[in-house]
Amino acid sequence: MTDERLTKFQEFITSKSIFFPSAEIYSDNFAGFYEYGPIGNKIRLNIIDFWRKEFVKKNNFLEISGSVILPKSVFEASGHLKKFDDPIATCSKCKQVFKLDKLLSTTIDKEVHENLSDEEYNQIIKENNVVCSFCKSPLEKITRFNLMAPLNIGAKEGNIGYLRGETCQSIFIDFLRVYKTSRQMLPLGICQHGKVYRNEISPRNGLLRCREFEQLECELFFNPKKINDIDISNILNKKIRLRLKKDDQEKEYSVKEIIDQEIVCGKTIVYYMSVLQTFLLDIGFSIKDLRFREPSDQEKAFYSKQQFDLEIFSENSWVELFCINYRTDYDLTSHTKGSKKDLSIVEDSEKFIPHVLEVASIGLDRLFYLLLERSFVLKEANQEKRNVLMLSSKISPFFVSILPLVKKDGLLEKGQEIYNNLKQENLPFDIFFDEKGSIGKRYARLDEIGCNFCLTIDHQTLEDKTLTIRNRDTFEQKRINVDDLKETLLSLYYDL
Amino acid sequence: MTDERLTKFQEFITSKSIFFPSAEIYSDNFAGFYEYGPIGNKIRLNIIDFWRKEFVKKNNFLEISGSVILPKSVFEASGHLKKFDDPIATCSKCKQVFKLDKLLSTTIDKEVHENLSDEEYNQIIKENNVVCSFCKSPLEKITRFNLMAPLNIGAKEGNIGYLRGETCQSIFIDFLRVYKTSRQMLPLGICQHGKVYRNEISPRNGLLRCREFEQLECELFFNPKKINDIDISNILNKKIRLRLKKDDQEKEYSVKEIIDQEIVCGKTIVYYMSVLQTFLLDIGFSIKDLRFREPSDQEKAFYSKQQFDLEIFSENSWVELFCINYRTDYDLTSHTKGSKKDLSIVEDSEKFIPHVLEVASIGLDRLFYLLLERSFVLKEANQEKRNVLMLSSKISPFFVSILPLVKKDGLLEKGQEIYNNLKQENLPFDIFFDEKGSIGKRYARLDEIGCNFCLTIDHQTLEDKTLTIRNRDTFEQKRINVDDLKETLLSLYYDL
Repeated sequence: MTDERLTKFQEFITSKSIFFPSAEIYSDNFAGFYEYGPIGNKIRLNIIDFWRKEFVKKNNFLEISGSVILPKSVFEASGHLKKFDDPIATCSKCKQVFKLDKLLSTTIDKEVHENLSDEEYNQIIKENNVVCSFCKSPLEKITRFNLMAPLNIGAKEGNIGYLRGETCQSIFIDFLRVYKTSRQMLPLGICQHGKVYRNEISPRNGLLRCREFEQLECELFFNPKKINDIDISNILNKKIRLRLKKDDQEKEYSVKEIIDQEIVCGKTIVYYMSVLQTFLLDIGFSIKDLRFREPSDQEKAFYSKQQFDLEIFSENSWVELFCINYRTDYDLTSHTKGSKKDLSIVEDSEKFIPHVLEVASIGLDRLFYLLLERSFVLKEANQEKRNVLMLSSKISPFFVSILPLVKKDGLLEKGQEIYNNLKQENLPFDIFFDEKGSIGKRYARLDEIGCNFCLTIDHQTLEDKTLTIRNRDTFEQKRINVDDLKETLLSLYYDL
Repeated sequence: MTDERLTKFQEFITSKSIFFPSAEIYSDNFAGFYEYGPIGNKIRLNIIDFWRKEFVKKNNFLEISGSVILPKSVFEASGHLKKFDDPIATCSKCKQVFKLDKLLSTTIDKEVHENLSDEEYNQIIKENNVVCSFCKSPLEKITRFNLMAPLNIGAKEGNIGYLRGETCQSIFIDFLRVYKTSRQMLPLGICQHGKVYRNEISPRNGLLRCREFEQLECELFFNPKKINDIDISNILNKKIRLRLKKDDQEKEYSVKEIIDQEIVCGKTIVYYMSVLQTFLLDIGFSIKDLRFREPSDQEKAFYSKQQFDLEIFSENSWVELFCINYRTDYDLTSHTKGSKKDLSIVEDSEKFIPHVLEVASIGLDRLFYLLLERSFVLKEANQEKRNVLMLSSKISPFFVSILPLVKKDGLLEKGQEIYNNLKQENLPFDIFFDEKGSIGKRYARLDEIGCNFCLTIDHQTLEDKTLTIRNRDTFEQKRINVDDLKETLLSLYYDL
């Protein structure tokens, strides 16, 4: 991103209240929480809708909605109370708390991972003489800070619940019930959308690392013996963009190559990589924006048999959006032990604990931010650069706006008539009516928030029932008949 | 509700996993938290969609999405840390904690309010010799238990946030920013959907009183001098069902009577009562199910200039669904004081703090439960009683299902072809395909979850391209042509 584009993008976010810090009128130290303004929230809701229609429904997944607070026993069993933590060190003098991997990485200008041992961290501190970055005093003993936020439930002390750090645990603990009350067939994909909480030590980068955020999750339960029982014949030649450990850069591999070279440990995995890549391209990314990165052994989750991190290129670096993660029977086995309830099922007369493929646990706020950042362009218009938000028709806050050229001569009334008629038509998109300011200023305002098409009502409209339709991305205008409006808009909406 | 219907309804909720207790495989004491299964969640999402389309968009309100956790200063200013509490008493021996108004109401069989003074409670305890209902020991000193759940934010101790108890505070603290980045015109309605938390002492009645639940909120900001500047000429004869303090039962008053008799303190209030009543009728309640009840002075919120509680009749009692509440300038004045930021605006050259009408803060889980309970009927079919969930087409989990009469003779393939063709059509509703079991059992299963129409593919379909369409509520069937299917379904969907 050029500096100019980045600056303009940040200005746009703030000036249009796309998102902004929570409780900003108060001066509390309250980093890591954000609010979506009306336009930002429309885009956010469209992304959720798109995920539900194009990902959940098309794949015949089931969606549930579980509670955000769950009892201690759930997170004891899942391992979150032991493992879901960050290494920290406190300044011996000013008591500032540091996320150790971050502090060390910055100080020694080399990436330090967040899952080293205390000894390894101590060695780096010693070798590089790392001190408090504020008051330069020595650091105190290294500890782990758990990111799960505890709460006392009810008036009696001692009944502890936690705000979930991921949306997946309710999917695991509800699995058997959902299985039994649905078709009782594997594979079974269960999805969930909702808030999650991580008590980050130093939240940063706006929406990219918050303490409160949303996930769009999907966990696939399957019989491990049938990991290859999936039809991939239609996608054998499809290219998936990978960044493998063995390669020194991103490379496109066909699905056939991925299978033949045993890059994945089962066809189910590459099938869903293909589904996910299509989803991301359909929502508005281009292929060069993304990669499935194979993490180092050190980075990989301890329960993971195979993992790829889907990353998006943004502001000159790669940002993780989600992982596709073969979690094996880790989760259902852990909850079987924790709850002492048998979570196995019977298929083909065989009793077993299903395996889990975490297809994706998408950070919604990250997806939102990365999509806006990738869609924001500076476009030449009348010798100046104009902000244009090139969102697809399914994601933009308004698909079409209706603009009377001027308010007089009956054009305002004609515009309102067309607007009201369209609103009666049960169209699948939102329509905006704007009569304020010069037509040029209105175009600019609507380009900036990503409105795909502008319909302008002028004097000719009164004569021959035509109006101009203007394309946001090309600025091209042509005249169409008002009687054809509904069909024209619908075909543009679905074909785009 | 007859006992039989109630029993069948509870069986239906459980057996279809419409909703169920969170973490039920664990034995923690974890009351007041629920999960929605796949069918329940579809209904839940449809209710949210309906609210967004029929309430938010039709009234030109703006929707935002704020964070659930907010800093202490926000709730100090709003009064929640002082006032958002329940009176409690602890048993001197077994240490059981009681919600005092509830315990006293049950013991003396007369309603005791939750906002009496300590002296008043003590007097009732003394006069009636109220003791612990478990071990019969005396109760200890009366205190107040705050329902707001505190959390430490970040690794440093002392930075306190709270889980919000209502969705409205972010609307108030974001008001000025939303006003400035929208049309800068009053009245301005700001809406929000999201989770809220109340650390209830004794959650009960399933979804009716949870510790975690969702709200569908709308706050209208307006110039108090213009409370009557709203066009109600079209609704003057419309009847609103009220339960006034002065009347001894529910009565229907026309909007004109409500204005003339000064039942409300401004036209804006009755206008939105009418909007809300229409919304509730459109979503599926009948007029006899609801009333706007005028609360006693003791029940009324302390900041409220005028309040009506919208109640729904369910299981032989009235349940509060939301209030319409004229909050005056209480909220914006409180946050002006708390934040030391000027939240006033200028209109007609006059600077003032806008007034707030809480149009509705709907408990989504209550709305969900009450709607299902009202829609659940036992219907005679083949000499037995069948469960039918009479949800409207916009709310039901599936509008239509496709059922091949048998799997053989090419009927399965024909059914799949029709299903796949319909799925390509970008229809606004969900379609279910079901080939398992006898046709009678399939009808029964689909009636129970509220599927509006069943399409049955039989041998005649192969001959003359017709199929039967069956109406859930009448069990009537007629034959229609496959070529007319899309138009028939769309007109049924929008006309119903």
